[in-house]
Amino acid sequence: MSDATKRASDWLAKFGAALEKGDERAAAALFGEDSYWRDLVAFTWNIHTSEGRGQIAEMLSATLGHTKPTNFAIDGEATEAGGVTEAWFTFETATARGRGHLRLKDDGAWTLLTTAQELKGHEEKRGRTRREGVAHGVHEERQHWVEKKEQEAKELGYTKQPYVVIIGGGQGGIALGARLRQLDIPHIVVEKNERAGDSWRKRYKSLCLHDPVWYDHLPYMPFPDNWPVFSPKDKIGDWLEMYTRVMEVNYWSSTEAKSAKYDEAKGEWTVEVVREGKPVTLRPKQLVLATGMSGVPNIPTFPGQDRFKGDQMHSSKFPSGETYRGKKVVVVGSNNSAHDICADCCEHGADVTMLQRTSTHIVKSESLMKYGLGPLYSEDALANGIDHHTADLIFASIPYKVLPEFQKPIYAQIKEQDADLYDRLDKRGFMMDWGDDDSGLFMKYLRRGSGYYIDVGACELVADGKIGLRSGVTIEEITENGVKLDTGEVLEADAIVYATGYGSMNGWAAQLISQETADKVGKCWGLGSDTRKDPGPWEGELRNMWKPTQQEGLWFHGGNLHQSRHYSQFLSLQLKAREAGIETPVYGMKPVHHTA
Amino acid sequence: MSDATKRASDWLAKFGAALEKGDERAAAALFGEDSYWRDLVAFTWNIHTSEGRGQIAEMLSATLGHTKPTNFAIDGEATEAGGVTEAWFTFETATARGRGHLRLKDDGAWTLLTTAQELKGHEEKRGRTRREGVAHGVHEERQHWVEKKEQEAKELGYTKQPYVVIIGGGQGGIALGARLRQLDIPHIVVEKNERAGDSWRKRYKSLCLHDPVWYDHLPYMPFPDNWPVFSPKDKIGDWLEMYTRVMEVNYWSSTEAKSAKYDEAKGEWTVEVVREGKPVTLRPKQLVLATGMSGVPNIPTFPGQDRFKGDQMHSSKFPSGETYRGKKVVVVGSNNSAHDICADCCEHGADVTMLQRTSTHIVKSESLMKYGLGPLYSEDALANGIDHHTADLIFASIPYKVLPEFQKPIYAQIKEQDADLYDRLDKRGFMMDWGDDDSGLFMKYLRRGSGYYIDVGACELVADGKIGLRSGVTIEEITENGVKLDTGEVLEADAIVYATGYGSMNGWAAQLISQETADKVGKCWGLGSDTRKDPGPWEGELRNMWKPTQQEGLWFHGGNLHQSRHYSQFLSLQLKAREAGIETPVYGMKPVHHTA
Repeated sequence: MSDATKRASDWLAKFGAALEKGDERAAAALFGEDSYWRDLVAFTWNIHTSEGRGQIAEMLSATLGHTKPTNFAIDGEATEAGGVTEAWFTFETATARGRGHLRLKDDGAWTLLTTAQELKGHEEKRGRTRREGVAHGVHEERQHWVEKKEQEAKELGYTKQPYVVIIGGGQGGIALGARLRQLDIPHIVVEKNERAGDSWRKRYKSLCLHDPVWYDHLPYMPFPDNWPVFSPKDKIGDWLEMYTRVMEVNYWSSTEAKSAKYDEAKGEWTVEVVREGKPVTLRPKQLVLATGMSGVPNIPTFPGQDRFKGDQMHSSKFPSGETYRGKKVVVVGSNNSAHDICADCCEHGADVTMLQRTSTHIVKSESLMKYGLGPLYSEDALANGIDHHTADLIFASIPYKVLPEFQKPIYAQIKEQDADLYDRLDKRGFMMDWGDDDSGLFMKYLRRGSGYYIDVGACELVADGKIGLRSGVTIEEITENGVKLDTGEVLEADAIVYATGYGSMNGWAAQLISQETADKVGKCWGLGSDTRKDPGPWEGELRNMWKPTQQEGLWFHGGNLHQSRHYSQFLSLQLKAREAGIETPVYGMKPVHHTA
Repeated sequence: MSDATKRASDWLAKFGAALEKGDERAAAALFGEDSYWRDLVAFTWNIHTSEGRGQIAEMLSATLGHTKPTNFAIDGEATEAGGVTEAWFTFETATARGRGHLRLKDDGAWTLLTTAQELKGHEEKRGRTRREGVAHGVHEERQHWVEKKEQEAKELGYTKQPYVVIIGGGQGGIALGARLRQLDIPHIVVEKNERAGDSWRKRYKSLCLHDPVWYDHLPYMPFPDNWPVFSPKDKIGDWLEMYTRVMEVNYWSSTEAKSAKYDEAKGEWTVEVVREGKPVTLRPKQLVLATGMSGVPNIPTFPGQDRFKGDQMHSSKFPSGETYRGKKVVVVGSNNSAHDICADCCEHGADVTMLQRTSTHIVKSESLMKYGLGPLYSEDALANGIDHHTADLIFASIPYKVLPEFQKPIYAQIKEQDADLYDRLDKRGFMMDWGDDDSGLFMKYLRRGSGYYIDVGACELVADGKIGLRSGVTIEEITENGVKLDTGEVLEADAIVYATGYGSMNGWAAQLISQETADKVGKCWGLGSDTRKDPGPWEGELRNMWKPTQQEGLWFHGGNLHQSRHYSQFLSLQLKAREAGIETPVYGMKPVHHTA
């Protein structure tokens, strides 16, 4: 046993003993001055980070009684680098089996991650415990697989009610649906498009995943090793459609959710949907909004907007650069969608101008992949024994409070590496930033979900002037034929595209349930970092995501493919526990500070 | 380095040196008296086993000149057990990189396997070399993935000719199609059904895979670990459909192949197909028949067959036991399909009788899984580090001549283990065998592709008398209302099902091309073991499967999922070499001894 392993094992032994004795003070004393305990559903039935010994003792005092943690054991060898000992471990609680990660410094634990991996008595059937499939032997009036499927399809939502209804059948709804199927939870995923995957197919033609394949796996069934690095949008659409089928997700396509209402007394939702033109009333106990981490499209208003004679649309409705060949397009905004759309126009011979109103964070895709994701999600990571399951937990082990410190050096390196591009953009007048504290793209994504472009080529077009640019301008009014800027300049336009982002996810709750409920649960996403578009106070976790909200039975699920994969696991365990009647005392519910 | 590793390394060093010197006698002298060299496409551009030093020297003398093998190197540690040293190794030839397996005894090599794994300059794009997917940067008039797909679909088979046409879009055609896509070979898979997977969906309801999941993976994309052990037929149908789409196989469903003709001068086929009602002429260089290892259904003729008033059908057309609820069914035959259909009838309240004409080999599915497949294909195998890629090569490393000796102890064990079942069947009068030489099921499968039932429950029904049984009988005639046996007994019947198997695959060549071509290539499958239904002389390999035939440009592909996966690799490399203009001198073509 190495010194590092001995040190981590000793710590875990003391920690386990303190917890089993119910001695929260002794347990908290094993943490350092600067310390964090991040818990995914194992202790808190919440996604919650306790910061410092005081908060840790407080959390334990509230949870130890029913959690009854035990069997802490190191898993594999610990490692040591730069004064930090790192180790994996396993443990149990009264209701679950868990896996955790520990970082030790001289004065005790620095970071601790505890995650529930499975509920006792409700283990997923995989590997050695997988289902038999066909029941061998003789069974009179045996129902075959396809007949069972047909019966389920006929009954569920009509004569039998699903326990969970998921609104939104994009990657988030599909990944969660697969997990619910695996946990035997009756569920329906409601999707307005005709086919799973259409949420990708129907976007503008040039859209592709800006994240590489190693980061994008769905639960249970990873992409094969001949899958391209960056999935074209229609290819990922096909994958999602097929995944939905083979994972046996109960997927209602061509179905629109009209309204939802919660009956507090019954603890039940009434969800009105229209399925292929026919109204159906669903009565689930749990309602998940998986309508994307983007909420309702933001369309700014400008004087004169109604007299414009050309096309006006939000970026989410942009068809293709081909549509505007030989025409003039003005794109309002300078983040991901704006760049993608400008490049698409440019490639198809449209005359396009980008209106940049505020600064944007720019990172080249290959640099992001190399410096940002590479250590955890890449062929190199795989060669180092880090598959995406391990990577997800390593990533989750870094508390959000500390994450910016992990991120800053990455972006400092990128800034130097790609200085030439940044120079040329700067010369062109393009306004850039690196986040309020230079912590870069991923923090911007977590704090506000916007404010950046992952460069897959459009920056060169901006730098070269092939994409026209007006920076630091505001729109004074829209004329019949174009856009008038505060500088007095009038840009002629056949089309105006508003690449102006989206509202908070609780906007969907306002549309579907009520403004009152939307306000009650409050803003989704963001950490309370007190940076631009992410007002404080500090929350420690993403607001309302994958965890209980102030509205009983209402959940939010969304994010990129990585988050959909990883956090759907913990959301599915929370839902399973409730369906199975396991007590789930939630610790650390935060008050609502912002309604949108 | 262990003694075993040193011994294997030394042998490989001497062997490599002899080959590099072109000294076939020195190389052959390194083999034992009783020795085998099985080559999959690396030395022989064939699937070929050389038996004994003489044949080995002969093969080398014919192939060394152009093969130019080099860089033999042990891969990992060798092992030693029972006087046999085993080792993995890698090597190269002038055109390919290969992987091999060696078994050494005291007097030299006992078995040697050499396999081509990839062609130099035509490596598959996987892992680190996977495609980028989306070309970043700016590309005027860029064609997106979906547009390229649409263009290919529009052109291929019309204005552009595929290099390969595969007739038959079941598991075999699909697996091969996936490999051809991966090797950038323009191909079309022709399938008469509407959807990929229909070849499973359209069979009788109770059909399921009799092989477990670990044995059944397709190339590139294994089943996920929540996949059931035995796939229900409709579920495997869905998987095949999904696989076809995400692997981007060019799949022409609802297309019937009408005729094919080879132009020797042009080296080109003319294949007439009808696609969704419209005739299309395809002109590929290579034609693959992947119509299943089963050939054309065998329907025996009996006097009076035409006056029978009920339903008569081949087992491949049997709908469901449900159809014959409360009715009388006679099933002619006693192998897999006969048992499945009798059980299905029984479960649905039909009165069913099995007519057994000759003896059948019976093995319980769970015993086959435990003793037969378990060491290579199971969760235990995975825990021992044997995934299906490794398992396939271990399995391939055992020469067919020696395989019965490996198989006999397995079945001796099963015979003892399941003695009770065999006893009860015997008491009922059910006639059983274990193959001519007691080598059991897999040898029967290889030799004749028939003659057994993998028991998933029907045997109990036979033993209990719930399935009626008449053994050792022949049918004298069919009456208006039933079947008259040679014993004088008349069995009343509402339906007669002929579970009487299939002809040789070259029957498809007779139907599609000509009887002359079918006779020219001769019987497919079987080893020439001089056992029942597998007449000699000894061939050493399966006749005509996955390797060049006597008809240039004509190939046969088929078998279970394991074989489709494994041998499609070597067939795809042979096709790629020809498409790329690599010289492929075929060694060891066998003369045709049997036409059907």
